[in-house]
Amino acid sequence: MEKCNSLRLQKLIELFSEYGRTENNGVTRLSLSAEDIAARKKLQALCEEIDMTVQYDDMGNMYATLPGKQNLPPIVIGSHMDSVIKGGRFDGVLGVLTALEAVYTIKEQQIELDFPITIVNFTNEEGARFEPSLMSSGVLSGKFAKAKMIASRDRNDITFAQALSESGFEGPETNRLKEATAYIELHIEQGPVLERKKLNIGVVEGVLGMVCYEISVYGESNHAGTTPISMRKDPMFTAANMIADMQKQLQGLDSDLVYTIGRINAYPNIHTVIPSEVTFTLEARHQNPQVISEVSRMVKELPQNLNGCSIKSTRLWDRDTVDFDVEVVDAVEAACSKLGYKGSRMYSGAGHDAQFIASYIPSAMIFVPSVNGYSHREDEFTSYEDCVKGADVLLNAVLILSREKVNN
Amino acid sequence: MEKCNSLRLQKLIELFSEYGRTENNGVTRLSLSAEDIAARKKLQALCEEIDMTVQYDDMGNMYATLPGKQNLPPIVIGSHMDSVIKGGRFDGVLGVLTALEAVYTIKEQQIELDFPITIVNFTNEEGARFEPSLMSSGVLSGKFAKAKMIASRDRNDITFAQALSESGFEGPETNRLKEATAYIELHIEQGPVLERKKLNIGVVEGVLGMVCYEISVYGESNHAGTTPISMRKDPMFTAANMIADMQKQLQGLDSDLVYTIGRINAYPNIHTVIPSEVTFTLEARHQNPQVISEVSRMVKELPQNLNGCSIKSTRLWDRDTVDFDVEVVDAVEAACSKLGYKGSRMYSGAGHDAQFIASYIPSAMIFVPSVNGYSHREDEFTSYEDCVKGADVLLNAVLILSREKVNN
Repeated sequence: MEKCNSLRLQKLIELFSEYGRTENNGVTRLSLSAEDIAARKKLQALCEEIDMTVQYDDMGNMYATLPGKQNLPPIVIGSHMDSVIKGGRFDGVLGVLTALEAVYTIKEQQIELDFPITIVNFTNEEGARFEPSLMSSGVLSGKFAKAKMIASRDRNDITFAQALSESGFEGPETNRLKEATAYIELHIEQGPVLERKKLNIGVVEGVLGMVCYEISVYGESNHAGTTPISMRKDPMFTAANMIADMQKQLQGLDSDLVYTIGRINAYPNIHTVIPSEVTFTLEARHQNPQVISEVSRMVKELPQNLNGCSIKSTRLWDRDTVDFDVEVVDAVEAACSKLGYKGSRMYSGAGHDAQFIASYIPSAMIFVPSVNGYSHREDEFTSYEDCVKGADVLLNAVLILSREKVNN
Repeated sequence: MEKCNSLRLQKLIELFSEYGRTENNGVTRLSLSAEDIAARKKLQALCEEIDMTVQYDDMGNMYATLPGKQNLPPIVIGSHMDSVIKGGRFDGVLGVLTALEAVYTIKEQQIELDFPITIVNFTNEEGARFEPSLMSSGVLSGKFAKAKMIASRDRNDITFAQALSESGFEGPETNRLKEATAYIELHIEQGPVLERKKLNIGVVEGVLGMVCYEISVYGESNHAGTTPISMRKDPMFTAANMIADMQKQLQGLDSDLVYTIGRINAYPNIHTVIPSEVTFTLEARHQNPQVISEVSRMVKELPQNLNGCSIKSTRLWDRDTVDFDVEVVDAVEAACSKLGYKGSRMYSGAGHDAQFIASYIPSAMIFVPSVNGYSHREDEFTSYEDCVKGADVLLNAVLILSREKVNN
């Protein structure tokens, strides 16, 4: 088993933490911002130092390729380097830096692979500056229309197209990631499971399907002091009882189902006024589409009228469960196992570029633990020990795949 | 029984509806705005036309006085002329215009009263431009400190003091309403009770006591997709169940209790994020302080910890029930009864200047019906028939009081 260099990886993480560093040791590195551009330039320089060829495509996705012994479709590893506002030092960038560390180790140990290795840095994964998230992998996989994506505007009314053009990282469409042998993305878990189970590695088999609804309860707004209870159409108490009831139903579906009411708004939202409307979201995620269907059925079966209020639900979006490639997942698991690291197969509840790339390239992901499950916040943390274990698994999964695939 | 002039009152209402008229036939007449100043000038001109003496005090409260046969403390009638943004044509101003119509009738019918009659127009009752509401009656009654009130700033950072000074309606403190024989305020009900019960007149015995709490449920924010249900501290479901439980308890207290959760906020309020906090208000109103105490007890007995969340409640404010003066209330009821109008004694759930003035002047109120209970909205409506019936009751209550009081 090959091992990466722990100290070198730590220094890489520390170095890239400076690009957009916040007061509280987090990172704000919005896509194609000055901070992101500086980080990209540094990454490019580091890759070119070890004789990798760096290219960009028409979405600004960056590809640094180390040639293989044979001119075969590459094994692609990486993630994204953009962050949310006041995000952490690991989300996204760790997948790129462990990929770089894996290549450093390959070079250093003079391992000769049949396949080229490409490090990828996807543009605007977070969607924090330009909506939606997963923008570039969405375009590459044909899920999103490029014309619509590049017209997306940030808060200063700058389009993605303009920001990309000014960044200097716009390349030809012909450079897009097309055929590849495999794609492996290492990412922080963004959840508490690995830490609670004292595991080092998540062998990610896929991305959970999900559904998200917006449910509105319409009542009648009136003065809180002058309207007897019997004459009210109160959407707040109606909504609260609906939420409590839905929780009971959701609890009964499947213990692996996750469901969240993350957003709620009352109108006019004044303490002395009975609201006219209470609107909330319900989103649920599960591997099994039948369980998701049960959630949808529950929402569809909500009464249209309750306590004098009318109820309307809208499906905001859904996504099917994405199952990663068996062979690539097996390679990740085998690497983890041979290294003697504690790992477990799991599904990702969060979305990642890999879920789109998986539609045309055999893909898998590697998760490393997130302390307290925190992500998208400045105190997001993964120990360097876990980071390097992740890099080791990534490296060895690449080696395993390279050997297996060339023999096929 | 004397009767007011229905057509004249209608014309007054229509005339004053033009001061700040909105597109949808409502009114935006913020306190001491150009619209309010124009309305005040018109009111002053109309009062002076019938030989009333107009004065202002140091809060800009306007007093128009018709002398009586004797130099006695006046009987005061009126309300306020300011409105909320996009309010209605009746709230407040109707109390001033019915007072003017009552004086018109007294003059026209050459009724000679022993007591002077003073029409009052209180400044900034709504608190829609300068917080708090009931500002000037609060200062007059010693509930609010004047220095703090006049430092209140509107959204353009203009202080009440500056707006008052520039309006030209600032008078000496010595002009404040001090000793008076009675204060009667006519107002729209702002609730649906009179309309539903097919009544013309509410004989208002007092203002309900109330209490308002802010209740916060603190959980742990995390990614909606990656955090298993068993590892969550979810304040949203906890809050929803608390609200549903509180509703059951509140329903059991007293059928006249009104309780409202008008405001709710989740943080960060993103559909894909388990909230870290859900905060909502609970306010309740009832005539009987013991019932209000039961509400407070319920809030105090909320668990401090529930489902891994911590719960904190803060009393935002409360007010004791205000009971109006028996003699003045009786005069209103007697007037209603003699006129043959359908009336009922009731408490006001909403706050009014009369609740503060009642602390030092024998007071009562008259309610007229609000269609659908609507107020503070452009479609607020009271029929002209109900308006003039209210004016009739106001006029006759003044006549009754004047006769009764002079004999004492």
